[in-house]
Amino acid sequence: MANLKLTYFDFPGGRAEATRLAMKIAGIEFEDYRFPFEKFQEEVKNTPLNQVPMLEIDGEKITQCNAINRYVGKLSGLYPEDDYQALICDEVMSALEDITHKLVSTFGLEGEELKQAREKFVDGSLSLSLEWLKEKLDKQGGEFFAENRLTVADLKVFVWVRGLTSGHLDHVPTDLVSRLAPNLLALRERVEQMPEVVSHYAN
Amino acid sequence: MANLKLTYFDFPGGRAEATRLAMKIAGIEFEDYRFPFEKFQEEVKNTPLNQVPMLEIDGEKITQCNAINRYVGKLSGLYPEDDYQALICDEVMSALEDITHKLVSTFGLEGEELKQAREKFVDGSLSLSLEWLKEKLDKQGGEFFAENRLTVADLKVFVWVRGLTSGHLDHVPTDLVSRLAPNLLALRERVEQMPEVVSHYAN
Repeated sequence: MANLKLTYFDFPGGRAEATRLAMKIAGIEFEDYRFPFEKFQEEVKNTPLNQVPMLEIDGEKITQCNAINRYVGKLSGLYPEDDYQALICDEVMSALEDITHKLVSTFGLEGEELKQAREKFVDGSLSLSLEWLKEKLDKQGGEFFAENRLTVADLKVFVWVRGLTSGHLDHVPTDLVSRLAPNLLALRERVEQMPEVVSHYAN
Repeated sequence: MANLKLTYFDFPGGRAEATRLAMKIAGIEFEDYRFPFEKFQEEVKNTPLNQVPMLEIDGEKITQCNAINRYVGKLSGLYPEDDYQALICDEVMSALEDITHKLVSTFGLEGEELKQAREKFVDGSLSLSLEWLKEKLDKQGGEFFAENRLTVADLKVFVWVRGLTSGHLDHVPTDLVSRLAPNLLALRERVEQMPEVVSHYAN
């Protein structure tokens, strides 16, 4: 097994958390290197495209969280074998990345400007994507997004739903997921109860 | 083989072109449904997440261009077999999608506002990504981005470089690629000379 080091903010969410969870669930050894938000400018000097997460594989620096999720998903047995099911897994992960971009574009705003941007986000693309995820999950059997088993798509949705329901995002109603996509809330609860996930958040 | 229909703008570039090329190169039958830009609002009423491209597989509607590229790449024999090489292929496609998002955010601007946004884009993230792509291609052998053979990553880079050097993007110097990443220009020329690609653009 290659030497793996994952670099990201010291934060139990965002773009590296699904990767961390996949490796924890599969029992894969890796260095979980975390840095405080205020060290971002310093840390990204050493990353490809000045961004995180970064996965180092025997020292080779790799960027792009969904590429990393897919690779680590394969290492962890948490990526579909079937090409069509892999397509659905990828589609869900890409769609979440799009919506994350839209959320991130509201970071740094304040006061009335933040309120307006967040309300537009909630009523527009966030609601649309939650409804789409709800339907997709139903169509795929209701429990997992792909291949009727846990994959990195479910882990990425889990992290996203956990963030949306946390109350840490101003002007994002914490009951939005339960109103628009209750099956995603059930998915969050199922993943949350996995022993490896319980242990990950207990530490 | 499933029935495949690809829906996108009637435009030889953008987010569906690598998919079209992969299927043309592999000789895969598909419906290449194209609509004029002014019909966008009407067409996206029928697509997942109100966006294009959309791939219909036996009528099942799939969104997200890189998920589609990966699936069609597998159908076409243009996706790496090896997991690490697949990671590099994915990393390159995801990075191009990020930079496309940044370019698209300047569409609709005009005059001095467009000029300033494009200059910032060129000097910042576009130059950074071209230099990163140049290094990545060199590291992977200089000719192809992954597995020493043509993959959907090369096709996506080809489409991107073709756009950047077209002269259709105001305030993006057409010699930027040749100055910062001459190996990408050589890749463009190699792909452009493939018989299936010549025939695709002749029609």
